[in-house]
Amino acid sequence: MLIVQKYGGTSVGDASRIRNVARRVVEQYRKGNQMVVVVSAMGDSTDDLIDLSRQITDNPSPREMDMLLSTGEQVSIALLAMAIKNLGVDAVSLTGPQAGIKTDACYSKSRVTAVDNTRLKAELAKDKIVIVAGFQGLNEYGDITTLGRGGSDTTAVVLAAALQADLCEIFTDVDGVYTTDPRIVPEACKLETITYDEMLELAHLGAAVLHPRAVECAKLYNIPLHVRCSFNDHPGTIVKEETDMEKSMVITGVTYTKNVAKLGIFGVPDQPGIAYMVFKKLADNNISVDMIVQSSMRDGINDISFTVAQDDLRRSLETIEEIIKVVGAQGYTHDADVAMVSVVGAGMNSNPGVAAMMFGALADVDINIEMISTSDIKISCIVKNSDAEKAVKILHSKFGLDKAN
Amino acid sequence: MLIVQKYGGTSVGDASRIRNVARRVVEQYRKGNQMVVVVSAMGDSTDDLIDLSRQITDNPSPREMDMLLSTGEQVSIALLAMAIKNLGVDAVSLTGPQAGIKTDACYSKSRVTAVDNTRLKAELAKDKIVIVAGFQGLNEYGDITTLGRGGSDTTAVVLAAALQADLCEIFTDVDGVYTTDPRIVPEACKLETITYDEMLELAHLGAAVLHPRAVECAKLYNIPLHVRCSFNDHPGTIVKEETDMEKSMVITGVTYTKNVAKLGIFGVPDQPGIAYMVFKKLADNNISVDMIVQSSMRDGINDISFTVAQDDLRRSLETIEEIIKVVGAQGYTHDADVAMVSVVGAGMNSNPGVAAMMFGALADVDINIEMISTSDIKISCIVKNSDAEKAVKILHSKFGLDKAN
Repeated sequence: MLIVQKYGGTSVGDASRIRNVARRVVEQYRKGNQMVVVVSAMGDSTDDLIDLSRQITDNPSPREMDMLLSTGEQVSIALLAMAIKNLGVDAVSLTGPQAGIKTDACYSKSRVTAVDNTRLKAELAKDKIVIVAGFQGLNEYGDITTLGRGGSDTTAVVLAAALQADLCEIFTDVDGVYTTDPRIVPEACKLETITYDEMLELAHLGAAVLHPRAVECAKLYNIPLHVRCSFNDHPGTIVKEETDMEKSMVITGVTYTKNVAKLGIFGVPDQPGIAYMVFKKLADNNISVDMIVQSSMRDGINDISFTVAQDDLRRSLETIEEIIKVVGAQGYTHDADVAMVSVVGAGMNSNPGVAAMMFGALADVDINIEMISTSDIKISCIVKNSDAEKAVKILHSKFGLDKAN
Repeated sequence: MLIVQKYGGTSVGDASRIRNVARRVVEQYRKGNQMVVVVSAMGDSTDDLIDLSRQITDNPSPREMDMLLSTGEQVSIALLAMAIKNLGVDAVSLTGPQAGIKTDACYSKSRVTAVDNTRLKAELAKDKIVIVAGFQGLNEYGDITTLGRGGSDTTAVVLAAALQADLCEIFTDVDGVYTTDPRIVPEACKLETITYDEMLELAHLGAAVLHPRAVECAKLYNIPLHVRCSFNDHPGTIVKEETDMEKSMVITGVTYTKNVAKLGIFGVPDQPGIAYMVFKKLADNNISVDMIVQSSMRDGINDISFTVAQDDLRRSLETIEEIIKVVGAQGYTHDADVAMVSVVGAGMNSNPGVAAMMFGALADVDINIEMISTSDIKISCIVKNSDAEKAVKILHSKFGLDKAN
């Protein structure tokens, strides 16, 4: 079997953990498997590099930031290759560029455009364990790019696709995907299986186990992912197309994203193309918009609200200043400190009343809902940042996800 | 003018020093110069990376060690480029591979074989300040190599040669090249000029200001080097082909290398080709041999003594074990803890009695000489490690180099 494994930053957080990963990888290799191993930067090293850049400037060049941050994974791959060789098995480390990972030109949030698997195949043919730096690639100008935080998951999945791997295992510091964050709700349960779409909603919404782009890519190439813990041998959660639980569970999980900023543009003329202009401009400035809500209640004018990451707030406000002049809006508002709380489940579609149950549960504990957005398999509410954890707990309980049930 | 500058690890040791370097570079750029800036890893970061590798294994793969260590310079170039852009001047950082630096395949001590200056010229043509990671390049297999410690000097000189630079400035934490180490002999004087050959002897022998390969390369392409301090604007020392002082000073400097290991193979058959076999074998194992002394005093057999860096002692002994069987030697000895002390000067050639004066000075303070080796412009003695500093002081004084004179 050709197995692609990915180990996150916590799994390679220090020398003894790297040796532990080496043992796990070699164990699979000695069973006759071909191994490609993707690793993240050690523990907090990416944050340390970001701190270093902030000592230089508040507004670092994205290209130079990628040049800086990509060193974190390069350190990990070198150390893991050393540790594997120390166990008597030949290994070779490859940076993202060396592994043939091509990306678009967009620094700090680049997307993989192709994988040239020539070198990967050549090293596997020499019976080597191949260690690849996650999170990074090379753009058409020959410059190093990064895929954004959590991008190592994406690296693992694109390599699994490019090599037609039999298995793609995502090792992390938790046992799998839970119905909500066990640090907040101790009654949270591990899911045995989950669909790509449910996982996408969970991942997008803050269950930081698996990067959403990795899930999208796995769905596209139909690669089952096994999310599991690098510190034990427990089975984790399988993410795949269909699950047996799909019809039986109305709600799969409750999730949240803290540190969100809400923005509103009010008095926007009710004309075709206005929303396009607003969000095109934001996209051009590389600002990811999450929830978008628009409603026309008065004649001829609209209000548009949306959320962005708190880090993008400053740039978002600058962009909005430009936008309101162009589109002729009356003004804008923002709230820098909110959170998004969501319930997710493929069974929701055929069960009326989920939304009402959610709003009722929040009202019961006096949590005000600032924005609402729904899709086929999720309902999201914007609440005060300080209410987020209380909201998650009550929803997890109300939807029958607590272990006790 | 096209200026190549190189800043060592101390000069970029923290964020404020990096900003200081950025200011110096921008100052030259604003005078209308084209700037290529080579930087080393920040302060002790290379040592930190080595420590990290030792937590994994005592015997790391050289290829993986280069993968690991090359991240140190990559961090520096990204931060310096950010700092320069923050001053309003466009800059771009390039790793050794991106800067077109090609090396041989020998990891950890690789030599530059060529520089493809295409990208460098393209970035300069866009009026950018180009920041290049010192100490690294790319071999024919597409793998990252390092040039050995101090290799950033070599990077600066090969870039100066490849770009036909008008000036190559080597910034360090000292004011220039001194007659000996001022930390040991406070009376040491700064030299205004020194020849390549004198600098080579000084650099080889432990005056750690400038890497010898950088000096060799500068000599080959006749590039004058200006060695100066990054913390002030004092003129430093110019290293060039001819100096005015050459004939007037018998001795230019006194230098030393501590932490040397001495090895001796005794009872070697006195036949042609034996020395070749010994040192070929050591070279094949990538062990750099420094002083070599052989003398035939008895009929038919020889003793060969030589010195290596203490770090190479273990591998040297393993190599010798093999060698003595092949060449039929009687045995070998070693002393792991000696130092080399040397006097250097182009005027030595025409001044008889320098050697006698040196040996006499050492005898006066009861220092025993374990090995002697001489060249046209230097005399070196191996002494006990613990005697090294005493030897340097007395020689500096005896040869009239103290400031008082």
